[in-house]
Amino acid sequence: MAVYTEISDGDLVRFMAEYDLGAALSCKGIAEGVENSNFLIKTERGSFFLTLYEKRVNPRDLPFFIGLMEHLAARGVSCPTPIRGRDGRSLRRLCERPAAVVSFLEGLSPHDIRPSHCAGIGDTLARLHAAGADFAMTRPNDLSLEGWPPLIAATGTSADSVAPGLAAELAHEMEALRIGWPHGLPSGICHADLFPDNVLFRDGQVSGVIDFYFACTDALAYDLAICLNAWCFEPDFSWNREKGERLVQAYHAVRPLTSAERAALPVLARGGALRFLLTRLYDWLNRAPGALVRPKDPLEYLAKLRFHRNVGSAETYGF
Amino acid sequence: MAVYTEISDGDLVRFMAEYDLGAALSCKGIAEGVENSNFLIKTERGSFFLTLYEKRVNPRDLPFFIGLMEHLAARGVSCPTPIRGRDGRSLRRLCERPAAVVSFLEGLSPHDIRPSHCAGIGDTLARLHAAGADFAMTRPNDLSLEGWPPLIAATGTSADSVAPGLAAELAHEMEALRIGWPHGLPSGICHADLFPDNVLFRDGQVSGVIDFYFACTDALAYDLAICLNAWCFEPDFSWNREKGERLVQAYHAVRPLTSAERAALPVLARGGALRFLLTRLYDWLNRAPGALVRPKDPLEYLAKLRFHRNVGSAETYGF
Repeated sequence: MAVYTEISDGDLVRFMAEYDLGAALSCKGIAEGVENSNFLIKTERGSFFLTLYEKRVNPRDLPFFIGLMEHLAARGVSCPTPIRGRDGRSLRRLCERPAAVVSFLEGLSPHDIRPSHCAGIGDTLARLHAAGADFAMTRPNDLSLEGWPPLIAATGTSADSVAPGLAAELAHEMEALRIGWPHGLPSGICHADLFPDNVLFRDGQVSGVIDFYFACTDALAYDLAICLNAWCFEPDFSWNREKGERLVQAYHAVRPLTSAERAALPVLARGGALRFLLTRLYDWLNRAPGALVRPKDPLEYLAKLRFHRNVGSAETYGF
Repeated sequence: MAVYTEISDGDLVRFMAEYDLGAALSCKGIAEGVENSNFLIKTERGSFFLTLYEKRVNPRDLPFFIGLMEHLAARGVSCPTPIRGRDGRSLRRLCERPAAVVSFLEGLSPHDIRPSHCAGIGDTLARLHAAGADFAMTRPNDLSLEGWPPLIAATGTSADSVAPGLAAELAHEMEALRIGWPHGLPSGICHADLFPDNVLFRDGQVSGVIDFYFACTDALAYDLAICLNAWCFEPDFSWNREKGERLVQAYHAVRPLTSAERAALPVLARGGALRFLLTRLYDWLNRAPGALVRPKDPLEYLAKLRFHRNVGSAETYGF
């Protein structure tokens, strides 16, 4: 939710001249996207999104992200399509930063999540996984099992300032997940951040999936487990069984889960909750005075983590 | 440069149903406007701006602002046109705040100001003043002569932490302006904040004037003096004589300045510089940790104030 870089009108006109999109008619900085600077640009040919990649994005990952969006869009996933310049390149530079123009998607992100939204998400995620199956590039998930201990170390005993006893609970949880984490599950392209902010709906149907900047190669069922965390709890953090069932069953109808994946859902969901708890906790403890971004409450994911810890079997999630 | 309020998709759909604009297809929070929350909305009928008025805007001023935009737009000024709902009302409520939808204007705000931009501003400002002549409502300018002493008192000796001796300089300046301030000049509708951020250009011509939330009734030449401050200095704060002449002459060609207005230009420009120095200084000294808005450098206007203080006559500005 920030614009970090301002683009001068002269730089924008020169930049857009490298595309076949006509002249820029307007350019508005968008209060969206925590990692990058985003602009909604109208040209003589329509509306487009321009992203300047700020320092939190590793430039070496950009060909993966851009290539993935192009791959998925070509296979019918409604996601931003990178626009190539006249020279055929979609990844360029502007204001001394890597930059890309992508198509603009219509739709509104849902705030009051209904079970029908969850069914749409399960279906969409499964289709995204299927469309990604023949994508040639890979990117490790640096926010999976191996990525959590450094975050736990970085937050340290400061975690107790957010909730008493949290540091010990995190250490204990990490140990349990290290022992119980499944290996050898079907792996492929994961969105890994498919929260309501990153999904657009129109007339009750998913009209677009955005923000692929956490996408990676990992267990597909872990991506599903992240969605369970993101979509199936109520605002009071209580589990909504109907939403979970609708999401999992819609996914299963497109890409049937193996028995190993089903059995692993509770521990994967627990890991997914820990992942967002840790990054939110880290951002909370390291929020800069004067920062443009308000950190999100980490305790939401502590509550979700505790729920999944007590789940006996995948039956809770719809099987 | 902030979105303070988030609108849920359900609230937006219900709100837009009160207009004849078709369904909302997308809604993006805009990183623009310090005082309010702004959204760029696409509907089946086109693009529109939605503003939620946050607490820094006095709700009693809103009928003036909305009425003024409607009045000016009807007289050919390219400014946001308030859109009326089916019930005829343009000022409504959304998310427990006053809210209005206005037309979306194309164009880009200039960053590298050329003399031709200044000529466009002079012309546009004079036409805005002429179009406002028969607007029936009035609003006092609370950031003119009477508004400065409270700001000086509120910053107090803290001013010296920004520049040594600044508190004494401000007191001295205030006294000089109180004695020298002109009275009885032609008065009318002033934009009062016509900075480059608030003007859109297309193909070198002014395509729109936005942000009327400082508009007020005051000496028209004071509005011109604010533009001299905003448009005619170089990035190193040196005066650009050509820009000043182009701006003043273009204004004069549409609405000829009286001899009293010409003679008053140096003291009006000095007052305009003090006005922005004081509000920037106040915001600088009172910036909240974690605020979404980065305060602007007050010292820019100290340099401009000192320039105007040493101007002998309106000849410097183009006469």
